Amino acid sequence: MQVETSAFPAFYGLRGIGLQDIYLDNSATTRVCDQAVKRMVQVMTVSYGNPSSLHQKGIEAEDEMDRARRAVADRLGCMEREIVFTSGGTEANNLALFGGAAAKKRAGKRIVVTQLEHSSVYETSDALERQGFEVVRLVPGPDGKIPTGSIYEAVNQDTILVSMMLVNNETGAIQPVEQMQKAVKKAGAPALIHCDAVQAFGKMPCRPAALGVDLMTISSHKIHGPKGAGALYIRKGARILPRQYGGSQEQGIRPGTEGVPAIAGFGAAVEALGDVTQHATQASKLWDALYKAAEAMPGVRINSPEDALPYVFNLSVEGVRSETMLHFLAQKGIYVSSGSACSKGALSRPLTAMGLSRKTVDSALRVSFSRFNRMEHVEALVEGIEEGIARLRK
Amino acid sequence: MQVETSAFPAFYGLRGIGLQDIYLDNSATTRVCDQAVKRMVQVMTVSYGNPSSLHQKGIEAEDEMDRARRAVADRLGCMEREIVFTSGGTEANNLALFGGAAAKKRAGKRIVVTQLEHSSVYETSDALERQGFEVVRLVPGPDGKIPTGSIYEAVNQDTILVSMMLVNNETGAIQPVEQMQKAVKKAGAPALIHCDAVQAFGKMPCRPAALGVDLMTISSHKIHGPKGAGALYIRKGARILPRQYGGSQEQGIRPGTEGVPAIAGFGAAVEALGDVTQHATQASKLWDALYKAAEAMPGVRINSPEDALPYVFNLSVEGVRSETMLHFLAQKGIYVSSGSACSKGALSRPLTAMGLSRKTVDSALRVSFSRFNRMEHVEALVEGIEEGIARLRK
Repeated sequence: MQVETSAFPAFYGLRGIGLQDIYLDNSATTRVCDQAVKRMVQVMTVSYGNPSSLHQKGIEAEDEMDRARRAVADRLGCMEREIVFTSGGTEANNLALFGGAAAKKRAGKRIVVTQLEHSSVYETSDALERQGFEVVRLVPGPDGKIPTGSIYEAVNQDTILVSMMLVNNETGAIQPVEQMQKAVKKAGAPALIHCDAVQAFGKMPCRPAALGVDLMTISSHKIHGPKGAGALYIRKGARILPRQYGGSQEQGIRPGTEGVPAIAGFGAAVEALGDVTQHATQASKLWDALYKAAEAMPGVRINSPEDALPYVFNLSVEGVRSETMLHFLAQKGIYVSSGSACSKGALSRPLTAMGLSRKTVDSALRVSFSRFNRMEHVEALVEGIEEGIARLRK
Repeated sequence: MQVETSAFPAFYGLRGIGLQDIYLDNSATTRVCDQAVKRMVQVMTVSYGNPSSLHQKGIEAEDEMDRARRAVADRLGCMEREIVFTSGGTEANNLALFGGAAAKKRAGKRIVVTQLEHSSVYETSDALERQGFEVVRLVPGPDGKIPTGSIYEAVNQDTILVSMMLVNNETGAIQPVEQMQKAVKKAGAPALIHCDAVQAFGKMPCRPAALGVDLMTISSHKIHGPKGAGALYIRKGARILPRQYGGSQEQGIRPGTEGVPAIAGFGAAVEALGDVTQHATQASKLWDALYKAAEAMPGVRINSPEDALPYVFNLSVEGVRSETMLHFLAQKGIYVSSGSACSKGALSRPLTAMGLSRKTVDSALRVSFSRFNRMEHVEALVEGIEEGIARLRK
């Protein structure tokens, strides 16, 4: 099994990674893998040209872009020209929704999203509503999943855009994404179908063609690539409008000098992913162990469904506020999350939409694995939570 | 004097930087300095948390953001909260123009730009024109500078946005940016004043307050920082609307998980800048030597004004097309540019606007220095151009 070590910090005279650190917040972000770091140093110190430059240094940089694009396209089972690199998942989600709605605005005005979406989809749909679009927000069941029937009810002939995440970032609940295409076909809707696959990519098979989606968002920093890179898959034949002007980069859909270091690092991280199904089997062992332990804890509610992605586990510890437990664990070098990192301080929208009580939401913790976590990490976490319950519960 | 060496590629088993390489395309992009690479490896392998996370790993990442923001703010002589990090200059320019126009749309409809602007300003102003704004495009004189009088003529009471670059990317001509505020005051215009200082930052003093601008764009990869980071200065009290939704990062003006590696690298590159006035004195020696040599070459036209920024030199070699000379020099490991890297293949808009003939524009070369260039580089370039003239001229 891969373990979390790196020779790099020592070379740079940096303090090493604390070996006691137990990082279980991989849905917020991940440590950058050595393969990505190495590739980035290469493009920054050797192949440092501007991909638009006509000389050798530019060609080298363009080659790095091509290599990253090939890695991502291979993983998604799509063509290289269907990949548009962005500065991250948030930009890709904004581009998909704004760019998709702008391209389709004459075909209808309904946009269907879910209450589970990341704020970069959810708040963008709010902005589109202010522009005059009609936005329908699907409500999850208590299991954290969108009921299939509600998709068919929501999608009508006037629907131009449907957006659903593949894996919820807070509970790991896998959503019925493949139903979107069926609902769109049944309604005879002109809709573009978008899937935010940021939490799914690299952790389960993510093939836009198999899921029947036109647009798919993925991100580098959730899979041990650097922050600052993401991509939007745009199915050949699907058309969206750019949000930004200033060059012909990324087919004019996302102009501006490419963030080559982060994109090359993203590509290297994708190449290093390995067999996601095999990694998921490993992750399931950790997830199952945590599930079993949580079940046995008094006053603990498990908020993730049993068939969640085995990298995300959400639980509420009755009588201990999320932040209190988070800080207690952090003092032991165990890092988890309260809700998603992006909604710092705010009450979780997805958990609230699932119908959980305010007290349950207020005491929710998210534990998120990566392929680098081991059973010892789960054991330390369980011990930490049990100690926290004993000390902190009122 | 600093020379271009790096121990990093060897550590990573990468081939070293070709010592024969003479990189004179620093206005297109630069090699990332070791200080920036080191900082980036730190944030990717040790302080790798999400700045929005509440635990230690998140706090470390937030500290890195704060440090970068302080470095940039110090250099601009502004407050830290006046800095909004973006994915680069193009995004910052788009944000300034779209966000500024959206915030001011009820106050008037005229937008004043110049024909010299980078396409991320120029094409964005085209897009705003399509939205119904009235766009006035100032024409440069034959010296590549915008005549002061034309600014006063263009800015009227209905003007909501004025945008002018500080240094032109193709000729190095320094523009009368400080006149914008005076023209706006004189006209009693409600305009926000934007300056694209991407080519100026780190090469001459760039203080938004001294220049009287509300918004200023700067970029990391032109000053030996990584590609994928830039910043928009937004004067306290000036208000623009966001272009992107999905989080409260960067005061909600630029949401999304921060590209911490590139931003931290940007900060380190700014810290490493040193005394820009002293570096400019050095660069002047190179620029003057090149000027003198070019003057002596038969059939060579110098397109940069004598008081250009001493980092950019534009010349046309009569009878030899730009790309032909560029490739001839590249074979010798000397890298220069034909026009700007961003307008690959297209005829230079700034040079055309200056009234240069098509033949002159077609044979234009841009030589751009950084503080790492030395006199030997200029000598090799001059020799190369002379040989090229002898061999290639029809």
